[in-house]
Amino acid sequence: MPLNEFEIIEKYFTNSWTNNSSVVIAPGDDCAVLATPQGKELCFSTDTLNEGVHFLDQSPPDVVASRTLACNLSDIAAMGGDPYGCLLAITLTEVKEPWIRDFSKKLFLLLENYDCPLVGGNISKGAALSLTMTVIGSVPRGKAITRSGARVGDGIYVTGELGDSIKGLELVKSGETDNYLAARYCYPVPRIEEGKALRGIASSMIDISDGLLSDLGHLCTASGLGAEIRLDSLPISTDLRETCGEDSAISFALGQSDDYELCFTIPKECEKKINFLRNSDLVSVTKIGEMIEEQKLLGLSGDGEYIELQSTGYMHF
Amino acid sequence: MPLNEFEIIEKYFTNSWTNNSSVVIAPGDDCAVLATPQGKELCFSTDTLNEGVHFLDQSPPDVVASRTLACNLSDIAAMGGDPYGCLLAITLTEVKEPWIRDFSKKLFLLLENYDCPLVGGNISKGAALSLTMTVIGSVPRGKAITRSGARVGDGIYVTGELGDSIKGLELVKSGETDNYLAARYCYPVPRIEEGKALRGIASSMIDISDGLLSDLGHLCTASGLGAEIRLDSLPISTDLRETCGEDSAISFALGQSDDYELCFTIPKECEKKINFLRNSDLVSVTKIGEMIEEQKLLGLSGDGEYIELQSTGYMHF
Repeated sequence: MPLNEFEIIEKYFTNSWTNNSSVVIAPGDDCAVLATPQGKELCFSTDTLNEGVHFLDQSPPDVVASRTLACNLSDIAAMGGDPYGCLLAITLTEVKEPWIRDFSKKLFLLLENYDCPLVGGNISKGAALSLTMTVIGSVPRGKAITRSGARVGDGIYVTGELGDSIKGLELVKSGETDNYLAARYCYPVPRIEEGKALRGIASSMIDISDGLLSDLGHLCTASGLGAEIRLDSLPISTDLRETCGEDSAISFALGQSDDYELCFTIPKECEKKINFLRNSDLVSVTKIGEMIEEQKLLGLSGDGEYIELQSTGYMHF
Repeated sequence: MPLNEFEIIEKYFTNSWTNNSSVVIAPGDDCAVLATPQGKELCFSTDTLNEGVHFLDQSPPDVVASRTLACNLSDIAAMGGDPYGCLLAITLTEVKEPWIRDFSKKLFLLLENYDCPLVGGNISKGAALSLTMTVIGSVPRGKAITRSGARVGDGIYVTGELGDSIKGLELVKSGETDNYLAARYCYPVPRIEEGKALRGIASSMIDISDGLLSDLGHLCTASGLGAEIRLDSLPISTDLRETCGEDSAISFALGQSDDYELCFTIPKECEKKINFLRNSDLVSVTKIGEMIEEQKLLGLSGDGEYIELQSTGYMHF
């Protein structure tokens, strides 16, 4: 007989590590109760991942756990937040205990790594595997980095390298799972430390999970500005360049990339401050352009030509 | 062409009323940001409702909105909490704009009623209609009412009347939607004010959405005790009694009832304090039994016989 939902929670989703100092009443009651951190504000975001839409059918449980958490924590990172806790609602079609075991093992490993207690959850039955996580982050009062603070002339930067994930997905679909690009798709890393390091420096920030152009477009709209991108300065990994060539790599980097990187703007007077980011344990950051007054996304090619770029992020409908 | 997800959010899920004083940064950024209320703690819970499982296929949108919110806010009520905010992730199979319009209209009406801003959300595509809400509540520090505080001899009480909802569901399935019992199923009312009024009075509390015996069983386990229920004192509505007779009514009241009522315990020395609940605008409360040392659920029938009751709550698997 399969485990019932209470037994699943008891066996696989109860972790003594969740007794961290913020957790006043641990999960298991009608609600968990968290302390309110002094001098801070709390950030909230929620995201659903559906099998066959946000991850491939029959994806390994550690991939589902990694993508669910990254996709959510990336939103906390984009505000400059620290993970404070999360809740996870899972809809299963049936109880496959090995899947649940491996999923929860990876999930708790990652949660511990990000010091993010799981403070609530729900398991229910439905037509397809679906996971909805809600994340809570904390930021010092008034220090959350929004999308709307960019000014004309601010430098536009991104963390890491772009375009790997969407090419990685192509490789995974064709059965090639054991390579760098596939790993970038399967095990994305939310840029929490980078986001925190940018508090008080970045004038605006967004995560680019829908794609650079789409999400930079949102940042531009929120700031009432446009952006000029130098296409030859987009950070592209050697693996991506070698796998698909320069032109395709740039398309992947701009389009529906599924990258969990951050795009942010830095006022001119602060640009020196981000040099320390380049010398620390954090992932590299690259300047890719500048904010402009005209409300357009312009691409500047290596030979000096301007192209108007179309925002082409992922749309469900 | 159907609306895309950003257009749906812009048109139907953006409400200026969410600019309440707790909302520092309104939804629309990577995260919303909420102030941390002074002297309080925050409660968290999440619940998923799947079409065909938690509500009937083709349920009207106002019923889906009501049940989604009640099911979640009921967990805040059960801690003695005040609604502080909520997030809603919706998975749609396709964009039916009239459905979304009517759903969001009812949702915002209820949210305003409960002073509970919607501070985040997500719309995605999937195999079946599914809604996951995460609710945030606030309670004065140290005042959350847990399941584990009951003591031997404490009186066991419930709010409202039991068993209506599950019978109402039967009626709705057979097409009889225009009656009191159906309304109790379709438009459940979370007992927020009642929960708050019980702060400092109730020694333990739980909501009984899985059914009285099942949820009282959880309360007993958490408190390390048992319960004795006087079956003839269960509060049963006239409508339920007249529709299905006394014996069936008691079965409905004890079993998988889907009632969003509260079950709570009151120490003997506080029993007088709850009289004011009976004289206020709050729903009536009824004493149904006492906590006992023996870890069993015992039913005492009208003619003085004891029956050991089996916990028979709803199980997904």
